[in-house]
Amino acid sequence: MFETAPEWETFMRKIHSINEASLELAPELQVSQWFNTARPLNLQELRGRVVLLQAFEMLCPACVAYGLPQATEVHGAFSASEVAVIGLHSVFEHHQAMTPQALEVFIQEYRLGFPIAVDAADPHGPVPQTMQAYGLRGTPSLVVLDHKARIRLHHFGRVNDLQLGTLIGQLRAEVASATSCDADGCALPLA
Amino acid sequence: MFETAPEWETFMRKIHSINEASLELAPELQVSQWFNTARPLNLQELRGRVVLLQAFEMLCPACVAYGLPQATEVHGAFSASEVAVIGLHSVFEHHQAMTPQALEVFIQEYRLGFPIAVDAADPHGPVPQTMQAYGLRGTPSLVVLDHKARIRLHHFGRVNDLQLGTLIGQLRAEVASATSCDADGCALPLA
Amino acid sequence: MFETAPEWETFMRKIHSINEASLELAPELQVSQWFNTARPLNLQELRGRVVLLQAFEMLCPACVAYGLPQATEVHGAFSASEVAVIGLHSVFEHHQAMTPQALEVFIQEYRLGFPIAVDAADPHGPVPQTMQAYGLRGTPSLVVLDHKARIRLHHFGRVNDLQLGTLIGQLRAEVASATSCDADGCALPLA
Amino acid sequence: MFETAPEWETFMRKIHSINEASLELAPELQVSQWFNTARPLNLQELRGRVVLLQAFEMLCPACVAYGLPQATEVHGAFSASEVAVIGLHSVFEHHQAMTPQALEVFIQEYRLGFPIAVDAADPHGPVPQTMQAYGLRGTPSLVVLDHKARIRLHHFGRVNDLQLGTLIGQLRAEVASATSCDADGCALPLA
Repeated sequence: MFETAPEWETFMRKIHSINEASLELAPELQVSQWFNTARPLNLQELRGRVVLLQAFEMLCPACVAYGLPQATEVHGAFSASEVAVIGLHSVFEHHQAMTPQALEVFIQEYRLGFPIAVDAADPHGPVPQTMQAYGLRGTPSLVVLDHKARIRLHHFGRVNDLQLGTLIGQLRAEVASATSCDADGCALPLA
Repeated sequence: MFETAPEWETFMRKIHSINEASLELAPELQVSQWFNTARPLNLQELRGRVVLLQAFEMLCPACVAYGLPQATEVHGAFSASEVAVIGLHSVFEHHQAMTPQALEVFIQEYRLGFPIAVDAADPHGPVPQTMQAYGLRGTPSLVVLDHKARIRLHHFGRVNDLQLGTLIGQLRAEVASATSCDADGCALPLA
Repeated sequence: MFETAPEWETFMRKIHSINEASLELAPELQVSQWFNTARPLNLQELRGRVVLLQAFEMLCPACVAYGLPQATEVHGAFSASEVAVIGLHSVFEHHQAMTPQALEVFIQEYRLGFPIAVDAADPHGPVPQTMQAYGLRGTPSLVVLDHKARIRLHHFGRVNDLQLGTLIGQLRAEVASATSCDADGCALPLA
Repeated sequence: MFETAPEWETFMRKIHSINEASLELAPELQVSQWFNTARPLNLQELRGRVVLLQAFEMLCPACVAYGLPQATEVHGAFSASEVAVIGLHSVFEHHQAMTPQALEVFIQEYRLGFPIAVDAADPHGPVPQTMQAYGLRGTPSLVVLDHKARIRLHHFGRVNDLQLGTLIGQLRAEVASATSCDADGCALPLA
């Protein structure tokens, strides 16, 4: 269902951080294995693109019901050179039932087409490393990065398509209008 | 979506077998393990009730999307003494990813409340024994038995709620009106 | 969404009136105009069939959202000689906006295919005559009659497809098994 | 359902007109009556905002099923000072059934909360004036204007929420980053 107005307003405030200095740089992904990509990805290389990280567990009902379908929709809607969709399999419970081997079957059965990373286990506890670094509360969690790899959305639970589209539309516009002047000098806009 | 009229007519013909002699008796379930029941069930003991068998695989998207939700709905709608709902985990592929241990997590995460049987493996091949005995084509498959344990529906894929309700309503009426006269004599109606 | 168990139990009790003497005979329809039928229908002639009356207003959102689609589904699923679906346009407010002329456009735009009766206006008040006779609380209301034109369901609001199917399945079984012995003598079953 | 990739690409090309010179200015609305607004609106006054025009007919099933619900969602999601949602009742057939009086009841029953304009009739034909001026093919049609009242989307049929959100996000970003230099001089950005 649609978010009530106050929830939406909170959401919109979250995605409009006027004070750029307060934006947090996304920690690099800690990954033990990749699926659906010829070579490992990293956030450093993805700078210049909008990045959508969909953290999930294969046996999480809400992930299957709406998190992964939404990621699939975004993956189908934008070229990967504009919006990179990455699934992050962050298993923090029932590790024996959600092994990389089982995940491989899951990916095949659900015909997931975007790159999927196995969040690297922490030898000292059940919560994997990337999940810790991002402070994710559970799955599904949606993290959206702008073209400078800054976290612009960090949300546990459902985000509706109108909300997500609004955010992506804004972040794509930022890419297009990016004045590329930084400490090194000025360059043409990316898009 | 709703079945087109010809499909519905075929369905209704399937469930109205006037020639009772042609009805097939359901083979007994071959089960290696049960969940959600204090003791093993068998079809012999369930005579007198309508039985809904929902064959599924835990990593089968259509089973998760509609097969198991429909079984859950029927389970919630009728008392088990009238309509017994049984899940049948018939794994015929990717056996390592869908072990009984993984199934236990799946049942817990999806909060399935009806009895679930693990279809007994066949040492000679990938297709489990009950799946073979019933000639199931895949999952999800729905098998509905009348109060005499005769197969009244044997369907691979989706059955809509109006169809399934119509069949259950008819089979419950048969229980209620059962003239209990057979070769052995006459007894009071069951219900 | 699915009814909670107590609601369902209430519903099932409603449709299983063991005490047949308590069943109410359906009042005849009072109709000022018919659509989608070559000649006027009446309940007397429909005896022997299950009858589904869907009372609606063309500008009632819930009627459009689920009442009329469900009637359409039942109409498509059963032959009219088994289950007769009748729409009843019971306008009790905003009469100028929901005239028979406007209804005709509505029927055409929504492609409704089952017979639709215009509930006859009461010269003394806003509530039409059939709506009064049945004591309907509002729209959508679903009234289901058995083959003896007795009211077996009288429900304001949503009835889910599994519930409705169960009722129809039971009522069809009653037709099929009707021992046709009454005070006048015995005759062959109808179906 | 989700648009296939080629449809999406066509859509995205439509909304990214790099050649600003080719963008068409939206014709002013021709309105005979307003609902849900204290005083008439006009596009000239709405400059500076994103404007979503939802053209509909009250007896058009697709308008009721998804066009108007989507307009309601956008209306609830953004403040009217950012995104102005306007319903446009463009009756081009069955004029007697869809009068302003009937529309008033429809608006009340469906609880539509955004301003709604009655497209002014053309004395010479059935198609109303605004519908002609915009070249709308039918209803529902969605027209989205940027803050300079230029047409950025002109679409007959369904636009999914991810698409629409992406467009709105982009247009809001354009407002925010508007360099306000024109022939008259330079001013601070609007937002």
